[in-house]
Amino acid sequence: MPPAGDAQETRRRLVEAAYREFAAHGVAGARVDRVAATAGVNKALIYFHFGNKEGLFTAVFEMIVNQALAEAPFDATKLPEYAGRIFDVGEANPEALRLVTWHRLERAADQPPPQAVIAANQSKVEAIAKAQAAGQVTARYTAAEILALVLSIANMWTVMSPEMHLAAPTDPAARRALVVDAVATLVRP
Amino acid sequence: MPPAGDAQETRRRLVEAAYREFAAHGVAGARVDRVAATAGVNKALIYFHFGNKEGLFTAVFEMIVNQALAEAPFDATKLPEYAGRIFDVGEANPEALRLVTWHRLERAADQPPPQAVIAANQSKVEAIAKAQAAGQVTARYTAAEILALVLSIANMWTVMSPEMHLAAPTDPAARRALVVDAVATLVRP
Repeated sequence: MPPAGDAQETRRRLVEAAYREFAAHGVAGARVDRVAATAGVNKALIYFHFGNKEGLFTAVFEMIVNQALAEAPFDATKLPEYAGRIFDVGEANPEALRLVTWHRLERAADQPPPQAVIAANQSKVEAIAKAQAAGQVTARYTAAEILALVLSIANMWTVMSPEMHLAAPTDPAARRALVVDAVATLVRP
Repeated sequence: MPPAGDAQETRRRLVEAAYREFAAHGVAGARVDRVAATAGVNKALIYFHFGNKEGLFTAVFEMIVNQALAEAPFDATKLPEYAGRIFDVGEANPEALRLVTWHRLERAADQPPPQAVIAANQSKVEAIAKAQAAGQVTARYTAAEILALVLSIANMWTVMSPEMHLAAPTDPAARRALVVDAVATLVRP
């Protein structure tokens, strides 16, 4: 076994290479030997570190979730600004949302959803409920509905079809302004 | 060559079988022989009628677009109701939006977007612009931005991740009510 520092570096390089492979080809289409070649490590180390391709995907997915949580800290009293930051994260990492979408399409119905995401959503819903009780956010919708609306609008451009992009403005500043303004309009008390 | 009526029935059965195959496996993962077997026709007829797998996909995609246009007629002066109908179409045909999403992920950058969709979007944008000029729809956003918002919100539940579905209400009537109300709030003059 290589020393611990090397092992960590190997994991990091594999997750990085897998991120691009999964975003481009999905989980079913991803090839483990291509990931190993891109990372410049022996394919056997993928199985050593992650068990199998699904384990490698889980590691990539957790990296994306943690990155989004770090780059867009949640503030239930500033939902328009939060939506703007989520938009920024999506613009800076278009591959991340592609990868999450592949995951949604490919995941078997019997696979449990990632616990990290469930816990993050639950704490956001609770924070929104508090802001509603304090009169800072509209009580017209439930807290969970508000979170669903905010995330859907924040990611609306990133998940949009190329056909729709042809009809709609392509200026990133205008896209961002629309996200922030629409969320502000919907969550106003 | 079989008589014309038979050819039409063969095409219909192939498109129907391909719809399920593409929705389940995406374009890359779809297998033409499985489509032929499900449709109960010789595989050679797929090439005869559609040229190749991409041609078969285009036929399926056009079927979905035409179905959505027929089931949710566009009325720029009744955008909340239109969003509700788009929601209904998505609920009734969950595979259709899966397929459109696969298409978005898999399509090569150099492939032209489907002309039918571009034309449909363009006429909707023009109708919204007229409704804005008549004071029936907010002028706060451009017509294309409004179309993008309406479609994003109408499809928000259909494209939502399973994690988010766990946090948000699962009652279809409540989901539909949110879509209609959010669009009404955003497009009000």
